[in-house]
Amino acid sequence: MRILIIGGEGTIGTSLVRYFSERHEVIIAGRSSGDIEVDIADTTSIKHMFEKTGDVDAVICAAGEAKWAPFETMSEEDYYIGIRSKLMGQVNLVRIGRAYVNEGGSITLTTGILADDPVPMTTSAAMVNGALHSFVKAVVLDLKERIRINVVSSGLVEDAVDKYRDYVPGHHPISMEKMLRGYIRSVEGKNTGEIIRIYS
Amino acid sequence: MRILIIGGEGTIGTSLVRYFSERHEVIIAGRSSGDIEVDIADTTSIKHMFEKTGDVDAVICAAGEAKWAPFETMSEEDYYIGIRSKLMGQVNLVRIGRAYVNEGGSITLTTGILADDPVPMTTSAAMVNGALHSFVKAVVLDLKERIRINVVSSGLVEDAVDKYRDYVPGHHPISMEKMLRGYIRSVEGKNTGEIIRIYS
Repeated sequence: MRILIIGGEGTIGTSLVRYFSERHEVIIAGRSSGDIEVDIADTTSIKHMFEKTGDVDAVICAAGEAKWAPFETMSEEDYYIGIRSKLMGQVNLVRIGRAYVNEGGSITLTTGILADDPVPMTTSAAMVNGALHSFVKAVVLDLKERIRINVVSSGLVEDAVDKYRDYVPGHHPISMEKMLRGYIRSVEGKNTGEIIRIYS
Repeated sequence: MRILIIGGEGTIGTSLVRYFSERHEVIIAGRSSGDIEVDIADTTSIKHMFEKTGDVDAVICAAGEAKWAPFETMSEEDYYIGIRSKLMGQVNLVRIGRAYVNEGGSITLTTGILADDPVPMTTSAAMVNGALHSFVKAVVLDLKERIRINVVSSGLVEDAVDKYRDYVPGHHPISMEKMLRGYIRSVEGKNTGEIIRIYS
């Protein structure tokens, strides 16, 4: 398979690249590293990326940001950081990318446990993740192409525990192996329209 | 109680106004009718509305729109109709309105079954509804005010069945009485942070 991994330099992306590049041809896209530069908050940048990759068998997105801050300090504009990047960035990857995915191929998005089980300071992150879960369920009803679309929603992965432990008290750390299986299921399986939840 | 109902002229809003005005003082806000004009897609308009109402015991929003169209015809800008109106309109109602709700009072938002059970042409509507579900669960963790925030997610209500029947094959029509109980639970009950689902 020819697999495009967007956000290959992040915590999850690094694991994805390690696993998939042993078994498949991997193209890495990232904001400042990888084979192709891309900013998913910028639709033109997404278009340029796909013009460079050409057709692929799978697209995995592990990119996108949203602001973490207490609700009372969140401005309207703060919400648009997550809306433009993690939410519409991933929607636009499906909008534009579907024409570049081979029949039977897949697009796999990334959200996280906050959609279902938020913690303080995550009104924006939770919103964006919840939005994508419903989007994925809806979009497969409309798709004309024979491609699959799933989203992996993982709990806090082990490699990020040191950084986030205090923000998510009592959350189960998810081993990188377990998290990876969500993406393997989406890319190498036949599932579509699924929210692949890996929370414990 | 003093209750502000936004979108009082819509299918759901009309029922809300009929019920609550028999038991409470009701102020109706709407885009083109009611006691106060408001466009929830416009933050300044929301601010002006609350300056006019002053403090209330409950805010109910049954306003907000999103574009219904097949995925392949949806432009990036089409998604922003729902994002600015139904999604950020309701988020901004909480951001701004929380200062005008008396202690123990409530803000009740409106979404719908598409968040959990979408149908064709609803990538935007589903997304916006799902976003609000996760937002409500997250925002109550951050709230400094002693107020309650819930969202009512109803299936297709009976009064809208003639218009939408063909779009939601096999969905259970929800009686207006049953739908109303979701709002009664939020306004007159003590629940908070709840997605009140009324799907059958």
